[in-house]
This record gives sequence, structure tokens and C-alpha cells, in this order.
Amino acid sequence: MIVLVINAGSSSLKFQLYEMEDESVLAKGKVERIGMESAILTYEPEGKQDVREVSEILEHTTAIRKVLDMLVHPVHGVLESAQQIDAVGHRVVHGGESFSNSALVNEEVKQEIKRLFDLAPLHNPAHMLGIQAVEANMPNVPQAVVFDTAFHQTMPPVTYLYPIPMVLYKKHKIRRYGFHGTSHAYVSERAAAFLGRPLRELKLVTCHIGNGASCTAVMDGRSYDTSMGMTPLEGLMMGTRSGDIDPAIVPFTMGKEDLTLSEVNSMLNKHSGLLAISGIGSDMREIDEARQTGDRNAALAFDMYEYRLRKCIGAYAAAMNGLDAIVFTAGVGENSASLRAAVCRNLSFLGLELDEAANDRRGSDERAITTPGSRVQVLVIPTNEELVIARDTYRLILDRNDVN
Amino acid sequence: MIVLVINAGSSSLKFQLYEMEDESVLAKGKVERIGMESAILTYEPEGKQDVREVSEILEHTTAIRKVLDMLVHPVHGVLESAQQIDAVGHRVVHGGESFSNSALVNEEVKQEIKRLFDLAPLHNPAHMLGIQAVEANMPNVPQAVVFDTAFHQTMPPVTYLYPIPMVLYKKHKIRRYGFHGTSHAYVSERAAAFLGRPLRELKLVTCHIGNGASCTAVMDGRSYDTSMGMTPLEGLMMGTRSGDIDPAIVPFTMGKEDLTLSEVNSMLNKHSGLLAISGIGSDMREIDEARQTGDRNAALAFDMYEYRLRKCIGAYAAAMNGLDAIVFTAGVGENSASLRAAVCRNLSFLGLELDEAANDRRGSDERAITTPGSRVQVLVIPTNEELVIARDTYRLILDRNDVN
Repeated sequence: MIVLVINAGSSSLKFQLYEMEDESVLAKGKVERIGMESAILTYEPEGKQDVREVSEILEHTTAIRKVLDMLVHPVHGVLESAQQIDAVGHRVVHGGESFSNSALVNEEVKQEIKRLFDLAPLHNPAHMLGIQAVEANMPNVPQAVVFDTAFHQTMPPVTYLYPIPMVLYKKHKIRRYGFHGTSHAYVSERAAAFLGRPLRELKLVTCHIGNGASCTAVMDGRSYDTSMGMTPLEGLMMGTRSGDIDPAIVPFTMGKEDLTLSEVNSMLNKHSGLLAISGIGSDMREIDEARQTGDRNAALAFDMYEYRLRKCIGAYAAAMNGLDAIVFTAGVGENSASLRAAVCRNLSFLGLELDEAANDRRGSDERAITTPGSRVQVLVIPTNEELVIARDTYRLILDRNDVN
Repeated sequence: MIVLVINAGSSSLKFQLYEMEDESVLAKGKVERIGMESAILTYEPEGKQDVREVSEILEHTTAIRKVLDMLVHPVHGVLESAQQIDAVGHRVVHGGESFSNSALVNEEVKQEIKRLFDLAPLHNPAHMLGIQAVEANMPNVPQAVVFDTAFHQTMPPVTYLYPIPMVLYKKHKIRRYGFHGTSHAYVSERAAAFLGRPLRELKLVTCHIGNGASCTAVMDGRSYDTSMGMTPLEGLMMGTRSGDIDPAIVPFTMGKEDLTLSEVNSMLNKHSGLLAISGIGSDMREIDEARQTGDRNAALAFDMYEYRLRKCIGAYAAAMNGLDAIVFTAGVGENSASLRAAVCRNLSFLGLELDEAANDRRGSDERAITTPGSRVQVLVIPTNEELVIARDTYRLILDRNDVN
């Protein structure tokens, strides 16, 4: 079975084509600057040369058409015909309280995703464009949706409710949802396999540290708590997002600087985090380099970022009354040995013993970076959200075929 | 030396009169409903009968005069004359970055407290009324100010800065200040004495849990981090305050419910916390009773309150890379055995062993509630902020006299 995975943003669209028999990637790529005359299609077919094409792509339907054209292209293609695609799986950021699992797309599901526009105004409308663009181009191909929030729907009220008037939950569904769920779920399972222990017996903190970043307390194989909240703003300090701050800072700043609601949102989501403190940028690699050449603001940004992550790990150890392993994943988590080292060196009170050499070694393999005797194991596990989406889509199609 | 301690609020004024020779309290009391025709003066002289008097008290100067009249009253008084009062010490909530210690009141100090009105609009103006009322009644008596924030001025930038645009710190002094400093400082010192170890060698988490609540990581005898922030809203769930929430909830709710800045502040400070979740009230005793008779919302409120406190303790253990002792103090911390038990039972992974009998025993003495073999000690230490204010005032007067 061949599955096409789509991650549609408002002006971009990433794709990955899987042969599910061996879970191999046949091709992947992205379309950027959708809506512009000079949109860019980047395409990487397996075993063939990469392609980069600049053309006018004004909306998502055209973007999908261009992708399909490329997949069946006589020279660059990896398929004989687009008919070979058995299913399409979409990443959808917000599934609210309606989706605790992935789902096949039907009218009801689409209506529900639309009802959640309000909670994820930057994401869900773009995903819907992606779904509609696939419908337009491949009307008979089944589609599935895989939600960033679904894994976290196991959280109990004690962790998902906020201590604010209950009417806000009842009326506006204000609660913790959590994000990066496919990643936290994937690396938890991989961690259990790596450790050779059943996932349901483990207490894990999974740290998905990319440009966005979140920590999850995984207990009994389920998400028990997670640092992102109603929106992806809460929790850890991130590339350009503040994470946790005194909530009173929001009205205080709005008053002092005469900011609108959207301006204060934009300040906290786009102009905060590493960017605001370092004054350099939001990329951990740049900041790490700058701090090693003596840049004080970069050093402060790094230290705050590490400190807030470490506090979250400690909080979740207390939340679960124990900790078997910490898992680092995503761009920064997989690649920043200095961040991991700083976190781990300062958690020795938990009996955590870093293996400095293992931590410094570069690689894209799953690995432990603690000594065998370390009471808390620390793992680096490359995430693979696309694979989870492909697998969930595959499973849903198989289940449907079984029923039919 | 006799010191009068004053804690002035906008419509209330608490006082306590100390003989510093033996730190004994000669009298204490409060004036409530200042500004009303039926203001209430409650007065408790040591070794004499308590007095309650209802009269018109329209402003703070009259309130202080009534207090002084009572202190020298032929029947109820504890002094021959008001001249016997050597100094007055005031609690001041916000000392900003200007005050890392208590200070004698002079023109400059008063100007600085006024400059901080902006950061503590509910508190500092009331404290200033208290200072002026003392000046009006006792023009030649030296006054000292003792700040809730001062103890926390040892925090490093990594813990006091927020990951938001630096201009907000530079221009509006938006940073973490922390509160309850006199209490955290007092119980830290008492904890070290109780444990028979030098304070500077200990890693403590002090939990001041009253109607307002905050946790402090005390390392090397200093505040290293604390849960309240720019304002007393941040951090733990409290009686009527939310503590930490997704900052994005603030603009989201303002938009949905069309709230003004002051309305959203009021919602988060006065209508959230235990009150919002339990639907019963903000008093932990009531909530604890209700939950024990099967009230589900009360149980949820209790669990959320405990969970968020426990996470903060775990976070600070990670912040300090270790934990020697947890200290509970203030109304709830000193009296709620069930809260302490819930926190401690869920921290057994740290080697913490609760002594259930010791925890259940009621008392106002300093005591350990863990077993002697517990790797983390847990202490209950009644706080005494008034005594700290009296001591600081006494010390400042002695120092001044030395210099003169």
C-alpha cells in the first residue's frame, strides 16, 4: 500500500510518499511560498536526483497537482500513475476533545475540524485547505487525519484543567490540549523498545525540542501531563515563543504599550524566546556558537532555555513520583549535545550519570547517552512524525477494508 | 527598645507591638473597614482582656491615632506613653530592584516606594498611607520599611528574566521579583537551626502556603528562584488566584468575553484558584472537609492545588540539583496535614519518608514530619513575618545609633 503524507501550512505544504510494505520513503519534498508567483517546489525522489522548481502556485489545489505531477514525472517520478496512491494522511494540529485517535476523513470529521478553527486559527484552516486540495485532485482516494493533540487526550482533569472559572472550559473549551503528540507517542514507544521494557511500566519524560518545544510526562504508556497548553505558547522557552510567564504580564504590557490582542499574541509567539534574549536569532546552533565565543546574551539565552527545560523535567518526575528515562528528540533535542549535557549534569541528584563521549558523538541513530549504571537513562531518539501519520493512515485503511 | 510593626492595606491596618529585649509581643490587633463609618478596631493586649471597638475611621491617620490611644489607654493600654515607642517598622510589598534589604525611611526611600506604585498598584500606595499616618502622629519616631521582594533580590538573571523582548525589562522593569520574602527568609533560617546545619550548605524548598502561596528554592542561604513573579499572580494555584496558565488564555478570554485589562486581572486574581474549581470557596479547610464528604469539585480543587505545588517542588529540586529539606509554612502549610501528606507521599522517589503520625499531630511548634532516615527532611515551621520586620527595624536603628 502506498500512502502520501501531507503537512499543509497556510503558505506551505510538506509531503512524504511511503511504501508501507517496508515503510520505505519513495519521495519527499515541500512546496513553499504558496500564493506567490515564485512558489518553490523542492522534491527529493529516492535514488534519483533532487529537483527544485520555481513557478506560480496560487493555492493548495495547484500545489497538490504539482506534487502529483512530479511523483509520476517520466524522468523524476517514482510512480507510474497517481492511481497507485492508496491513501493520503494529513497532519492536523488541533483535534480538541473530539479526537483521541486518528480518523478517516468524512463530512462529520471535516465539520469538527472546522469547529476547532477557533482554537487553532493558524493551523486548522490550512490543514483543511490541504484536505480539500487532495479531494479536488484525487476525489476517490481515502484520507486520514492524525492529530497533534490526540496522544494527550489521556490526560486527567487534574492536569488538563486550568484553575480559572469553570465556565471558560464549558463555554470556550479552554483547557490544556498539548501538542507534538505524534512525536511524543513515537519516541515513547521507541524508548521502551530500546530499553527492552514494557512501555506501560515506564515513567518517561519525552522532550520534543525543536523550534517549538514541549515536554511530556508519559506514565503507564500514556500522556499524563504536557507542557504546551491550550495553545503551543505555554511551557518551555522556545525559539521565538516565551513559554510560561506571569499571566499578569499580558494585561500589564498591553496597557503600557497600548497593544491589541493580536499584537500581544504576536509578541509572545514570534518575538520572544531565544530570539528576544539572545538578540541574535531563534536557532540554537547559532546561539550555542555565539555563546562559545563569549557572547553574553547568547549565553544567557542558552542558560534560560536549559534551566526552564530542566525545571520541567524535575516537575514531571515529581508528577509521576519517579523517572526511568528522559528522551530527547526533534531538531535541537537530537543535535544539541551541549544542551543535553547541561540538563543532565544538573540532574545528578536523581542518580543520572551522563556518558559525555556518547553524548558528544553525532549520529542519527537511537542511542543512550548515560552510563549503564545510571539510575535514570537518557536517550536520544530521532522523531518521525511522518511515519506515524503514514502508519495510522495505513491502519485505518486496513481496518476499514476489514469491516467492508 | 519598643518597636511597632505596621502592615497597612488600602482599607485595613494590622499592628504588633514588640519589646525587643526578649522579642515579646506586648499587644497586637487590627483596624478594618478604614474609610467607613463603622470601622472596627480589634485589640489584643498581652495579659489583658481583648477589646473590639466600632467607630468612624475615615483614613489611615485616624486609624494610627486610635491604635496609639489604645496602646496607652488607662485600662487596656500596655504603655505609659506613646513616647516609649522607639521605632516603627512597615511591611512594604514591592521594593523593585532598588531594595535588596530593609531600609530606614527618608525622602529618597519614600520617592522610590512611590515610583514602584506602578508595579504594585494594590499594595504600595496603601503602605505609603501607613508611613504618612505614622509621620503625622509620631513625627520624631524613626521608621523602617521591610520589603516582601528584598530576599529574592539575590536571584540571578537566568531565573528572574522572562523570555520576552528585553525592552520590556529595560523600559518597564518587567521581571520576576517574588514575594513573601520575609517569610521565606525566616523559615529558611529556622530550618537550618532545626536541622543543626549551616544554612549556606542547604538546598531548601520553602513553601509559604496561605491564601496567597509561593515556593522558593533557597540555595547557599539565598533565594535562587521563586514561583511568584512580576506580580503575586504567577506560580502556584492559590485561594482565588490562578497561578500559571497558558499566557495565550489571557488575550483569548479577553476577546471571547470582551473583557477589559482590569476585568481580566480581576478574574485571574479574585475569581480563580480553589474558588473557581471547587465552587465552594477559597479556604482550604472548607475544601478539605467537603472533599472528605464526597464533593467531587472540592476533590478536584484539592488535587490540582496539591499537584501544582508538588510540581514546583520537583522543579526546584532540579533547579538546585538536589534537595535537603522542604519547609511548609503559613496558614495552609502549617495546618493542612492532608495537603502535606499528599505532597509527601508522591515524592517518595526522592527518598522522602513521611512520618504520618508526626504529620497528623496538631501544634504550633517547629517540627519534622519525616522519619529520621528520610533522605529529604520535611519541616513545618510557623512563619512570623512581624517578628522579622521588628528585628530588621531594631537592627537598622541600632546600626544608625552606632554610626551617629
